[in-house]
Order: sequence, then structure tokens, then C-alpha cells
Amino acid sequence: MYDADYDAPSRLDAPVSPATPHRQGLEYCTVRTTTERLAASLSAEDQTVQSIPDTSPTKWHRAHTTWFFETFVLGGHMPGYRAFHPDFAYLFNSYYEAAGPRHARPQRGLITRPGVAEVTDYRRHVDRAMTSLIAGVDLDGPCGLAELIELGLHHEQQHQELIVMDLQHLLSCSPTFPVCGPLPWSHPKPIASKEWIGHDGGIVEIGHDGDGFAFDCEGPRHEELLRPFEISTDLVTCGDWLAFIDDGGYRRADLWMSEGWGAVQANGWQAPGYWHDVDRAWSVFGLDGLWPVDEAAPVRHVSWFEADAYARWAEARLPLEAEWEAVAPAPGDPSASEVVEAAEAAGWHGAVWQWTASPYTPYPGFRSAPGAVGEYNGKFMVNQQVLRGSSLATPPGHARRTYRNFFPTQARWAFSGLRLARD
Amino acid sequence: MYDADYDAPSRLDAPVSPATPHRQGLEYCTVRTTTERLAASLSAEDQTVQSIPDTSPTKWHRAHTTWFFETFVLGGHMPGYRAFHPDFAYLFNSYYEAAGPRHARPQRGLITRPGVAEVTDYRRHVDRAMTSLIAGVDLDGPCGLAELIELGLHHEQQHQELIVMDLQHLLSCSPTFPVCGPLPWSHPKPIASKEWIGHDGGIVEIGHDGDGFAFDCEGPRHEELLRPFEISTDLVTCGDWLAFIDDGGYRRADLWMSEGWGAVQANGWQAPGYWHDVDRAWSVFGLDGLWPVDEAAPVRHVSWFEADAYARWAEARLPLEAEWEAVAPAPGDPSASEVVEAAEAAGWHGAVWQWTASPYTPYPGFRSAPGAVGEYNGKFMVNQQVLRGSSLATPPGHARRTYRNFFPTQARWAFSGLRLARD
Amino acid sequence: MYDADYDAPSRLDAPVSPATPHRQGLEYCTVRTTTERLAASLSAEDQTVQSIPDTSPTKWHRAHTTWFFETFVLGGHMPGYRAFHPDFAYLFNSYYEAAGPRHARPQRGLITRPGVAEVTDYRRHVDRAMTSLIAGVDLDGPCGLAELIELGLHHEQQHQELIVMDLQHLLSCSPTFPVCGPLPWSHPKPIASKEWIGHDGGIVEIGHDGDGFAFDCEGPRHEELLRPFEISTDLVTCGDWLAFIDDGGYRRADLWMSEGWGAVQANGWQAPGYWHDVDRAWSVFGLDGLWPVDEAAPVRHVSWFEADAYARWAEARLPLEAEWEAVAPAPGDPSASEVVEAAEAAGWHGAVWQWTASPYTPYPGFRSAPGAVGEYNGKFMVNQQVLRGSSLATPPGHARRTYRNFFPTQARWAFSGLRLARD
Amino acid sequence: MYDADYDAPSRLDAPVSPATPHRQGLEYCTVRTTTERLAASLSAEDQTVQSIPDTSPTKWHRAHTTWFFETFVLGGHMPGYRAFHPDFAYLFNSYYEAAGPRHARPQRGLITRPGVAEVTDYRRHVDRAMTSLIAGVDLDGPCGLAELIELGLHHEQQHQELIVMDLQHLLSCSPTFPVCGPLPWSHPKPIASKEWIGHDGGIVEIGHDGDGFAFDCEGPRHEELLRPFEISTDLVTCGDWLAFIDDGGYRRADLWMSEGWGAVQANGWQAPGYWHDVDRAWSVFGLDGLWPVDEAAPVRHVSWFEADAYARWAEARLPLEAEWEAVAPAPGDPSASEVVEAAEAAGWHGAVWQWTASPYTPYPGFRSAPGAVGEYNGKFMVNQQVLRGSSLATPPGHARRTYRNFFPTQARWAFSGLRLARD
Repeated sequence: MYDADYDAPSRLDAPVSPATPHRQGLEYCTVRTTTERLAASLSAEDQTVQSIPDTSPTKWHRAHTTWFFETFVLGGHMPGYRAFHPDFAYLFNSYYEAAGPRHARPQRGLITRPGVAEVTDYRRHVDRAMTSLIAGVDLDGPCGLAELIELGLHHEQQHQELIVMDLQHLLSCSPTFPVCGPLPWSHPKPIASKEWIGHDGGIVEIGHDGDGFAFDCEGPRHEELLRPFEISTDLVTCGDWLAFIDDGGYRRADLWMSEGWGAVQANGWQAPGYWHDVDRAWSVFGLDGLWPVDEAAPVRHVSWFEADAYARWAEARLPLEAEWEAVAPAPGDPSASEVVEAAEAAGWHGAVWQWTASPYTPYPGFRSAPGAVGEYNGKFMVNQQVLRGSSLATPPGHARRTYRNFFPTQARWAFSGLRLARD
Repeated sequence: MYDADYDAPSRLDAPVSPATPHRQGLEYCTVRTTTERLAASLSAEDQTVQSIPDTSPTKWHRAHTTWFFETFVLGGHMPGYRAFHPDFAYLFNSYYEAAGPRHARPQRGLITRPGVAEVTDYRRHVDRAMTSLIAGVDLDGPCGLAELIELGLHHEQQHQELIVMDLQHLLSCSPTFPVCGPLPWSHPKPIASKEWIGHDGGIVEIGHDGDGFAFDCEGPRHEELLRPFEISTDLVTCGDWLAFIDDGGYRRADLWMSEGWGAVQANGWQAPGYWHDVDRAWSVFGLDGLWPVDEAAPVRHVSWFEADAYARWAEARLPLEAEWEAVAPAPGDPSASEVVEAAEAAGWHGAVWQWTASPYTPYPGFRSAPGAVGEYNGKFMVNQQVLRGSSLATPPGHARRTYRNFFPTQARWAFSGLRLARD
Repeated sequence: MYDADYDAPSRLDAPVSPATPHRQGLEYCTVRTTTERLAASLSAEDQTVQSIPDTSPTKWHRAHTTWFFETFVLGGHMPGYRAFHPDFAYLFNSYYEAAGPRHARPQRGLITRPGVAEVTDYRRHVDRAMTSLIAGVDLDGPCGLAELIELGLHHEQQHQELIVMDLQHLLSCSPTFPVCGPLPWSHPKPIASKEWIGHDGGIVEIGHDGDGFAFDCEGPRHEELLRPFEISTDLVTCGDWLAFIDDGGYRRADLWMSEGWGAVQANGWQAPGYWHDVDRAWSVFGLDGLWPVDEAAPVRHVSWFEADAYARWAEARLPLEAEWEAVAPAPGDPSASEVVEAAEAAGWHGAVWQWTASPYTPYPGFRSAPGAVGEYNGKFMVNQQVLRGSSLATPPGHARRTYRNFFPTQARWAFSGLRLARD
Repeated sequence: MYDADYDAPSRLDAPVSPATPHRQGLEYCTVRTTTERLAASLSAEDQTVQSIPDTSPTKWHRAHTTWFFETFVLGGHMPGYRAFHPDFAYLFNSYYEAAGPRHARPQRGLITRPGVAEVTDYRRHVDRAMTSLIAGVDLDGPCGLAELIELGLHHEQQHQELIVMDLQHLLSCSPTFPVCGPLPWSHPKPIASKEWIGHDGGIVEIGHDGDGFAFDCEGPRHEELLRPFEISTDLVTCGDWLAFIDDGGYRRADLWMSEGWGAVQANGWQAPGYWHDVDRAWSVFGLDGLWPVDEAAPVRHVSWFEADAYARWAEARLPLEAEWEAVAPAPGDPSASEVVEAAEAAGWHGAVWQWTASPYTPYPGFRSAPGAVGEYNGKFMVNQQVLRGSSLATPPGHARRTYRNFFPTQARWAFSGLRLARD
């Protein structure tokens, strides 16, 4: 998700299931602790620098997610709560215009004060208030506190993935290729099965059905008319991509969208993001440093333009998001796919986000919610393409079959890959 | 149509109806003469300058459309044809990679030689050869000559509209607001009826059915699933737009897409393109010079961002292209609308192109044709929005109900306006 | 001379010698006719286009020089004179702030109306009034008319050189390398003598002494303290430059100013301006089209950065402007050199402007004159380097030994070359 | 000093005075400790971020000055010395081409590893080796070690001022205006005397005479011919500048160089750097945070363009650097002025660098030294203006009457002010 100024898609589109204070208190602690575990191995220097306008410092992510709880939960619902610092509302708002003015995004990396230690204090201050609030009030009362807190936690999980993306980008700017270290979670590796799943087309229902949490852009659930299609069980691998490169994929204008061809030439693209030509062999920089390309691994850090060109070269196409959703298993539950019972689940979730042929547009009947939390639900719904699934950097429990991630067509710093479809 | 490096969508998606040489010879002469009539009132200076990279000089349009016939018709099908000048293939190719290297688009305005008079000679040279070819061969033979010529003529009609657009932009750069003069054609003016046309939704068929000419992106004809909707019989007018301005439309971030709000601020937009604040009242520059805004006239030269923001302000939305096509009458024939028999036809065609909510993507089953003429049929199908209808600058006979025009979301130099829809 | 927004250095620093109306009427006709002869072989298209912001269209030069006479001579001194067109004061002012608002320089090429024919009419209108004025009044009266007219004529001569420079740049943008044609004047070719002229240093006087016309920046005449030096009798040739290229001159950072090395890399410089690598041999584009480099010809279209790097490579340096002036003969009069009686005169004037080591700064005691004509006399006296001599494109009679031309250090479209000096 | 890619002017132009190991060991410790005292109050975050390409992180300055000793002293002169880390030569070289490739300047702020603690270790490692070397060898032997070390210490003092400049710029980017804290040194405040010092002109000697250390650009000592002039005893104050602002100084094109006027408009300058309009009164951000402007304090953070425009407005001019040097007292010794015995010394040194009318060009007979240390001595001698004196941020002992600082004409982040001169 998340164009250069995006942030959390937000409105809940349905009431959450009943929650006891205990359950949500536990979830709150788990999510908040995971963010701190991500930051734990990073120095103050690592957490402060912003490498490009698209990214943000780790320190900022840690403070901004905290600001969300302070502003939207504590500020409105905890009598007597006192803001940690009067400047933070300005410094750590991201794009909520209704929540007041905010620091410009490209300058986030210029803020050295507050430092990392003060941000840690800020998080503790808010966590104390939040756990106290959760323990002491009826979350499921008319104020919608349970909903707000759940939203804040999903928002923070999105930022966990952003921390990983942004950090990898930052470290890639060091000529010494530093190692970021392992994530505090892991997902199963995809297993290749080299098959195509067929679908007869017709009217299918997609979108979130209101059972459990979802971001508002995932609904309303609605019907789509599909033509018969096939979709690959496998993600495109680095080995596949090497064949594309070797066949002149980055030099053949006929494979590319006009704007994509312009991007190839303007940026000098010859391989996916983070690939380096080391003595005439391709290596790739990742969280574990710089290593030779693993041909069996799913390719990642490709832009939509590259995914689209690859699909054309492979005499296939990218799937529509409705096709993807009609076939994909739910995360962690391969048997849940209505269409393909025995489909290999690994690869659909937890490896790479998968570009689709679908522009990110509102579902029929979509409406933005009023107010600051719901502000701008749809304001990124143009000039972006949808990605489906989830990636190695997505925290466990955050993925959904209906999840709609999105990025501009030239973005490469997300963990973005692809699978093919065909008529 | 047509992003900064766009050109003619091209492949015929179906055989044209039988044509005798005589009919096509007549059509050839009509279209070619119309181009010359457009240029007739322009000085050599007017025809030479390029005001922005998106536009091209009139001289270039006149030569490029001629080059199309020379290269794709005469070059391959007229034995003994001799090219007018060896440099012209380089100078007047637009983007056909398979047809060889070409002069960079943003530098088209730097070419002063050949001059206007030599371009006129070039057109005569090719016209002589073409009319001779048309008179002397069986156009409907296996070479597909009739198709190629028909394509060339529709291509030239597209450039006629571009000549008008580009010229208006050029003259708008003169502080003296020169008058361009009347077009060699006219369309009926729209009549407001202040009604909404209802549609029950369901499965509709859209796209070209193969009867008569169409560009390839208009097919394949296929089914779309619509929800019930209403669409306005009227175009949004300048009077409507003044109300939007007066209500702070250009100052309220909540009405805009995030990227659109960025464009408002980066470009200082306060009104549609070509509007000028003259002593605190709005005037608009057009082919007839600078005049006070006519409140009854359809607004034009608005970007997609503006159209989208306006629709949100008006508590409505832009129509999908399938909704538009399901309701719109054919050009010149209001009774042909299957859905709304008595709909007011004026306004759907011949006033302004109408922005839709639909990104420009391939129809299901769309395939690009091979070779230079068919090259890149779909290479603009990303990051652009579809416009439907046609404008005052569209030459008569060029519009179709299935026609898909497209521009990037910030473009304002086309004759682009909007009509509203709602659920 | 003349940075991107430069124009005529202007104030007369001394009374001109007595002039009868007849002499000045003749001079007026000669200069004005020469401008028209320069334009005579150019089409309307050639005269309209502006290739870069630094340059201006021929049409603009022709109108602007005319505007100068209309505004500063006729406007103030000819009762009943009626301006040719009310818009022209806005369109053809260059930078005289006190003379009112003006059209932005980079958009000069967007003006297609008035056209070339109307500019010709404008020139005739003003010429009729001017010749009538010259014939009928006492030019040497207290109004300073003779001075103003003389200034206008020198101003127009400066623009004659600019017309040549700007035209060559424009034609160089055509991939077909069109021929501009011969100039209406010629200068003797330099003859190489391979000698160094010695000078003992000490206090010398430089600057204009008030005898005849000079631009204000050429005075006050004053003393400069020089060290002993030698200066070459010869201009650096294309053959010399080829040796510099072959020795890696464009690849050795140690030869360059830091900012110059940045320019080499940013612009990809590998040879002087207008040089093209044609099948691995250097050709150069000029007024006569594209021809193989003539090794005996003075190199031209080199920036100050290149001239400076060349001098360092040649184990010499650029001369100071005072050194140049102390040694150089007056144009057309080799024997006039006080220092070197028999010096070969050709090369000092009429071939190329010669970069010096001197930044363009005010002479001691320099003061700007008040008012519009004298406005901004010194406003370019920073971040520019002085060139001395004159070039093949300088009209006869315009050069002086005290003439101070100037350009920014990266400019290459002037007829700029160099000669060497050493301690 | 020091344009965007500047660094230490370097070659010694004369033998230093005899030095015992003890004295130089003491000096080494003093200078190195001062750098660490500057950094002591800064967090890791403060030391890591680079706010604009012109500046560098404190961490980088601390490592780069250390690299200088490691590379040029230890690397060549201490047998068995082992570099602290193999990557540091690449990361912390600034522009010494002959010393190998280096990390691009604008990306210095992207390096988070090594962190601040590792840089501290690096400094200790090199300090141990350096003090051991100084204690154990004959510094005044033929290797020129004493000279190299002295050069390294002056180089580090230059970077001390840069640390202050760059830090102030960084903190100014925080919307909260953080306080940097006091410097580890102080200079006497200037005392206004409202007088003009007269000078009769004639031949004066300027430049370094070889007694004690100087950077190479300060020599050779040579004669300059001056005209009679007066120079103010006082620096221009903030109060003076407020009068300039109030009189429309930033809105009157006639006061400005053409390029300066462009800078005013492009950057929206309305006051010196770091000035903020707080409720219609001017405040200024400095090392002590944001405070109302002190009218008696010397104005600082003005560009050359502003200084030049101010002087014109005040009907005066900037002094030439030779005029300044002919009159100025030596730092810390007012009586040393040959011209004005009783001149008030405060203000010439220790408050602000003072812009002069002199472009930064080589003195007559200047030659660059060969090799890496002496590399590029003159490579910034174009398109920059000389500043004289020293500032509050210049460490004690670093100033000299012959010191030539330089910056581009639009730079404002140095501690730059002015004093006036007149004929």
C-alpha cells in the first residue's frame, strides 16, 4: 500500500465481533511490542534517517502510530488524559487534514529532536494510558472504542511492514551493504507446483463480508462478472526473471507500456530493485545483506511496469484482482478457497505482494466516512494499481483474502512480485 | 486522446464494409482537404511553434499524417513510388518503433526546415500518388488496402482535433490573446433539460460490434455487470463551475484525490484551463479570443482531478464508461439509444469530451496486432482515464458511441468536460 | 556579451565627436540595413523559433532593436510620434524595468503574432520617423539625441551578432544540419606566427579614454599594476584542441575547476560546442553546415571552463583582460599597439572572442547612470568572465580594443575561443 | 569557505617555524579535543542527518578529519600502522581524487553505519597512533611531517566551523527551533564607533609573507595598486538591515545584480537567512534558539547578492579584499594595523565573515602543488566571492589577516555579514 503520502486506509466497514477488554488488551500489547522488537536492533542513527521522500524514519513510524492512539482514542475518550508533548501532534500527524496542520513528509528525516529515547518514552506514556483505558471502560459501548482500537492496531501493523520496507531502502544506500537482521516473525516458503488453476468465469462475489475487521476500501461486497481464466499456482521466480533479462526484456520497447518504457530509460533499469551486477553475476540486497540471486525464490521489488512487461513476454497477463480473490485461499487456510480445494497455499500470502491488472478504484457503492479517522478513505483511488496477497514483511495476522494493497506503477521498494494469469 | 507520446490507436478490429474505389477516393479527398482548411488561416509562424512538449506544431501534424500514408500505404503497396524526401521518415514518424528511429517529440518545435510551403508540397506529392493508387487498384483485395486507407483517414481526423487543441494552447501563450478563427465545421449546441436518466443495471453489452470502422481498443464487444444508476442529461456548465469555485472548491482538500490536491497546489489552479481573472470576473480564452465566461456553456478544459472533485462536491460521481455507453445515443441519432428513447441528444457528442470514472484498461480478450501499424495498440492503457463522447473540435463523422478517448488525470488542454452520475 | 537576460550595456561615458545629421543619417541607414540583410535569407519559420532560453528569435531581435529607437528616441523627442502598436512595448522590451513590464524572456519563442511581415512593417514605420527626425533637428543639442542614436546603433550591432549566434544554435537543433548561409560581411583570417609577445609589467593604463563611442563598462580609464608576462600571438586552433582531446583532456579531473568538472560530467562534454563525432572523426557545425574540423582554424564555442582547462593542460594560463588590452592592437590597425609594433594583427579581432582570466567586475570608480537607458549598466558584473577581441560574427566597425564582452563560465553558444599567456 | 564540494585549501606555502614534538603534540591534542567538545552535546541523531547537499553530518566531519591524518600522515609515515576499517577511506574521503574513489557528497547523510560510537572509536584509534608518532620521531626531518600535521590541524579547525554552520542549518529545519547550546569558545563582541578609516591608495603589499602557517591560496605575497578609499570601522547591524527592509530593499530591482534579483524572486527572500516573521516582528534563529532580532548585533547569514544590494542602497560599496587587508588589524592585535593605529579591532575578527567585492581568483604567480594533499588548491577559484575576517564560529587561533574565505554568491548558511567601503 501506500503512495508517497498515503497512510492508513481506515474506516471500519462493519462492527467488529464482540471483544472483552482482556482480549483487546492482549492484542494491543502484542502489536505494540512487535513494533518495538522491529526497532530493537536498530541504532539511533538507523532510526532517524529518511532515504527518499517515499519513505519515513523508523523513529517517525514509532511515534506516528503512537500519535494515532493518543489523538483518536485517548484524546477523545479518556478524561484527564494529558498529551505527552504539545509539539508531537504537529510532528507526527501524517495526512489527516482534519486533525490539524502537520510536518511535511519529505522533511521527516530532518527532525533529530525528539530523539529515539524520547520516542520510546512517548510510546510508554501512551501505552500506560491505553492499557489503563482498556482495562477500565466498556470498550463495546456506544463510543465505538473497540473499533477505534482495532483500527489503530491494524494501522500499526501496516506501519510495521513500512518500517521493514523503509529500513531496507535506507541500508541499501550504504555502499557497505549492512545487514538489517532477521524479522521477529517468519512465513512458510512457497512451494512450486507448476500448475494452472482454471475458473469458469461468471458472476462471483468479492469484497469483505463484514465478518471481522477490514479496511473500508475492501467493501462493499459485490458481484463481478468474470470470463473464464486460468491463474498460476506459482509466483514468478528470480530464475524466471533471469530468463526475461537474458532475452532482452529490458531492451525491447514492444513489451512495455509507453510510460513504462520511459521509466526503464530514465532510471536505467536492467533488473529488479536491489539487484546488483557483481562481476557479471546478479546479486540481490535484502535484510540479510548482499547475496547471489536465488533462482528458486520469488522475484520481488519489481514495479508494475516490469510485472506487466514480464507477463507480456511470457505470453500471459496479470490477473484482475477479482480473479485473484475468486481463486486465492485465505491466509493460513488453504482449504478455504471455494474454487480450488487442494491448491497449494504457500505463495498466495507471506512471500510477495502480487501486482494485478486492476487499477485501484472504489468498489460499487463505496462511500468515504466523515471526520478525521475516516478522512480520505478513497483519496488514493487513482493512478495506482492493486496488489493482492501479502509479503514476508507483513506481520502475521494482518493479511486477508480481501486485502487491497496499492502502489504507483513505478514503485519498487515494496516487497512486490507477481503471478501470471491467462484467458 | 493521447498522452504526451500518444498517437493513433490503430488496428481495425473487423473487416470494413465493402468499399468501391470511388467512395474511398471521395472520403480521402474530404478528410485531406479539411486538414488544409484548418491550416489555411494560419501563418507560417503559427504553424511552426510548439508551446509545450504535449503539443505539436500544425506543420508537424500536416506532415505526420502525410507520412502515415506514404509509409504504410504507398511505401508497401505502390510499385515505383518514390519518397518525397529522405529525411522526412525520420522527422515525421511519431512513435512507431518498428518504422525506424524518429525525432524526439519535445523538439518538434525546433525544426524550421522544411518550412510550411515544403510541407504543402509534400502533401500534394502524396495526394497525387494516393488518388492515383485509389483509382487504379482493387482496394478490397488481399492486401487490405481499403482498411489501411480508412485507418489513415481516421488517424488524420484525430490529428485534426489535435491541431485545434494545440493551436489554442499556442495562442493562449501570447499575452495579446489572438483570435484563432472559426472551425470549418460546427456541431449543434447542447440544450439543457435538467433531468436524470435512470438505468436498472444488470448485464449490458458494450464495445464495438464490428459494423463499420472502430479503433482496436473499442473491442472486443463484451458484457459488463452494472448496478442501478442515474446519469444526467446535461453537461456541467460554466455556471455550475462558478458555484463550485465560489464555494471554495479549489481550497477544500477533502474534495480532492490526494494527487489532485497536490496538482492544485503545484499549479496554482483556481479555475479551469484558459480562465483568466480579469478585473475580478472570469473570462475564458478560446478559438474566438478572450470573452467573459458564458454561464450556460458546458465547462471545458478541466482535468480529471477537477472533474472528480466537482462531482464529489455536487454529491454525485463520474459515470463509468460502461454506464455512459449503455445510455448515450449514437452521434447524430438520438433515437438510437436503446435505453432512453427520448433523451436529449445534444451534449453527448460535439460539445466536450466527458471524463469518466473508468481507468483506460484493455477490454477482456483485447490483443494488440503485430507490426508497425498495429504496434502499441495498448501501450497507453495505464495511468489514464477514459473520456467519452466528442467535442466541438472533433471533425464530423469521427465520433462513435463506442469511442474511447483517454488522457492523463492532470491534462487540461483537451476539450474536456463532464456530466454527473449517481447510484 | 550577455548573460541569459543581458542586454545592451549602455551609458555613453563621454560626449561623442561632433556629428552632422548627414553622417548619422548614413550610419543609421547602414546599421539598420545590415540587420535586414542578416534576416533576408531566413524564412518566417527560421525567424520565429527560440531554441533555448538563452537565445531569442530573429524576429524578436529585429523588433526589439526597433523598440529601442521608438521608446528612447522617438517617444521622448519627436512630438506627435505615434507608436506603431500598443502591445509592442510589452512584447519587445528586454529588461528595462524602468520602461515598464515586459514579456518573459524564455517565452519569446511562443509569440507567433505579430509575424515576420508585421515586424518588417514596424521597422519601416520607425525608420521613416527616425530618418525624418535625423534630417530635421539639431542632434547635438542639449537633448543628447546624437548620443542616444549612436547608442541605439551600437545596441543594434550587438544584436546583429546575437542574431548570428542564436540562429546557428537554432539550426543546430535540426537533425538535417541546414546551412545558414554567408554573413553580409567578412573579416581577414588570422595568420599563425607561433610567437610569444613579452611585456615587462608595471603600471599600465586601460579602459576607454573618451575619444569616440564606448559602452559605460569600458571606463573609467585607470591604472593597473601588471607583472611581467608573455602572451601568444596566436589563437588556440582546432588542431591544438584535438591534441587536448586525444590526451584525455575531457577525462582528467586535475585539469579542471571543480565546477567545470561538474559541467563536463553533467553535460557529457567531449569536445567543443557543435562538434559531432561522425564515424569516429570530428566534424563541426557552423553557418555553412556540417564539415570536418579544420585543424588550422581557431577553435570556437568553448566555455570558459574548457578554455581554463586547456590552458592548464598547455602549462600556460589565460591572460588577464588588462594584459590583453596592454598588448592587443586596435581593430583594423596593427601598428597602433603601443607594445608590439609589428605584431600580427589578424586573430586579435574578427575571428573569435577570447576568454580571459578576469571576472567581469566594475572598473575603479565605475558608476551606473540613472534612468531607463542607463539602467542596469553594471547589473551583470558578477559570476561572469570577460572576453576580449571580437569574432567573425561581430559586424565591422563594432569592435574596440577596450571592448569588454562577458558570458557565464559554462556558455558555449557565443563565438568564443582563446589565446594563451604565461608568466 | 567552501562551496558545495569544497574542502580544505591545503598546501603550505612556506616552511613552518621550528617545532618541538612537545609543542605540536600539545596542539594536536587541543584541536582534536575541541572537535569532540563541539560534538559532546549532540545526540547520535543530531550527528547523523544532512539537511542539504551543501552541508555534512557532524559524524562525517569527525570521521573525515580523522581520515585526513590516517591517510596523509599515518598511512605514509608510520610503519606498521593499520587502518581502522577498510571501508572508511571510501566513506570519508571528501574530494581528493588522487586518494581514490569516494562516497558522493549529497549522500553523506544516508550512511547510518558506522554510527557515532564507532566514529568515536575511530578517532581514538588514530589519536593513539598520532600521539605516539609525534612523540617518537623527528617531525622536522625531510619528510615534512611537521608541516603535514600542522596542515591537518588547520584543516580540522575549518571543519569545526563547518560543524557549527551545518548543525545550525540542520536544527533550523525542525519546526520546534531547538537550541544548539553554547560554543566551547567565545570572541569579544564588536563595539560600534561609527567612523570611516581613510586610506590614500597607492601600491600596497598583501598576501602571506611566509611567517607561520597559511593556506596556499593566501600567497604569493604581492603588490596591489589601490585608489584612495574609506572603510567603515563598523559591521552592518541588524538595525541597519531593518531599515533596508523597511525601505523596500527586497522589492527594488534597481538595487540588485540581475542574478541576485532572480535569487530574491526564486527563493522568496524578504530578510536574511534564519529570520522569521513572528507576529509581524522579525525573530532570528541561532545557536541559542529563536529570539527577537537584536538591532545592535552584526547582521549575518546574508548572501553576497544581499550584501551587494545593501551597499548600493547605502550609497557605498563592498571593499576589495586588498582594501580590507590593507586596513584590518591582525586578529587579537589591534595595534598591528599599519594604517590605523587606534582602530577598534573588535568586529574585524570573531563576529562575522565579511563579504568583499573581490571574486576569488589566484594571486599573481599562484601555482597548485602536485599530489593528493596539494590537489585542487585552486579548483574553486571561479564563480565565488572572497570573505575576509572570521566569525563567532571560527575557533580561536584559526584567523589571520591574510585569510581568504570564499562562498558562492547565493550562499547564506555561513556566518556571513559585511562592512561598507566608499571611494
